[in-house]
Amino acid sequence: MSFYIGLLHYPVYNKGGEIIASAITNLDLHDLARLAKTYGATRFYVINPLTDQQDLAKRICQHWVSGYGAHYNKDRQEAMSLISIVPTLEVCIGEIRDSEGETPVLMATDAGKDRGKRVNYTLAREIVACTRVVMILFGTGWGIAEGLITKADYCLEPIIGVSRYNHLSVRTAAAITLDRLFSPFARPQKDS
Amino acid sequence: MSFYIGLLHYPVYNKGGEIIASAITNLDLHDLARLAKTYGATRFYVINPLTDQQDLAKRICQHWVSGYGAHYNKDRQEAMSLISIVPTLEVCIGEIRDSEGETPVLMATDAGKDRGKRVNYTLAREIVACTRVVMILFGTGWGIAEGLITKADYCLEPIIGVSRYNHLSVRTAAAITLDRLFSPFARPQKDS
Repeated sequence: MSFYIGLLHYPVYNKGGEIIASAITNLDLHDLARLAKTYGATRFYVINPLTDQQDLAKRICQHWVSGYGAHYNKDRQEAMSLISIVPTLEVCIGEIRDSEGETPVLMATDAGKDRGKRVNYTLAREIVACTRVVMILFGTGWGIAEGLITKADYCLEPIIGVSRYNHLSVRTAAAITLDRLFSPFARPQKDS
Repeated sequence: MSFYIGLLHYPVYNKGGEIIASAITNLDLHDLARLAKTYGATRFYVINPLTDQQDLAKRICQHWVSGYGAHYNKDRQEAMSLISIVPTLEVCIGEIRDSEGETPVLMATDAGKDRGKRVNYTLAREIVACTRVVMILFGTGWGIAEGLITKADYCLEPIIGVSRYNHLSVRTAAAITLDRLFSPFARPQKDS
């Protein structure tokens, strides 16, 4: 099994429910690259259609992959090397298809209402374990637009901790998702 | 069971292995407050001895708890209300003791070498489940100083994902730790 993670900046919602292209957050790149490395993702796609935002992300990556940061912190270089910056999800899927020889199964994530083909983490673990190529897609802003969620092969249920509060950052939500799906520790209960 | 989380900025290591007071990262406050709310922590202590850093953290919290941010985002207000800013771990432990009537069991976290009284996540889940008051302490910079790690009641083992790479951010490490310790999903395997 080979898996990829993607961080989507368009189409996502803003606070008012409008579809926008969101800005790139520097720490998202670092945190998700380090998670990708920790959990064995093949690549981490940063998806943003705005060329100035792509340029910003490329400059950040260049600093850590081949610039001063590469000498300053080898561990960070290793993680940031996993990042690819692409304009659209279609380009991203196309690159994975070219590289793997097949279209990845697309698993979206959503903290919101019951949209798309929902799967819980127990089932999702089984799906990723028996699928050859998987792409796990995280949203920014107020979440991935519904049109895309419904097109995904699966949509992971929201992360519920102990309270009903489910307003995590994409950084911490991605961490919990990858640990639940891939960690040898996080086996689900038999009855869950 | 009542649990607290703490984010320690002193004493921690810098890259060169010296003990320093680290600077506060804005997104650490947001991400860990949202995690605290999600997993039911009683409070989130930001521990930093530098008064200018305390002032910065207080201004950030004030914005979200009672300033403009409180109206802008009620969910964020709810999370940021959990933050207390204290100068030292001793003050933090003292506040918890005053409030709970007993000293919390201190569980430190460490991505480094085998220091302190190590416990794996399976055992740590059992410990927190049967302890009345627990404080889970996360470090910044290059990790909590050894003198403090060895004084803690327990020290959680590093988070290992699928690869041996264990260089997560404190934001994502805290997310995985709380999910492994408290989530109904993250039951350990019987043989782990």
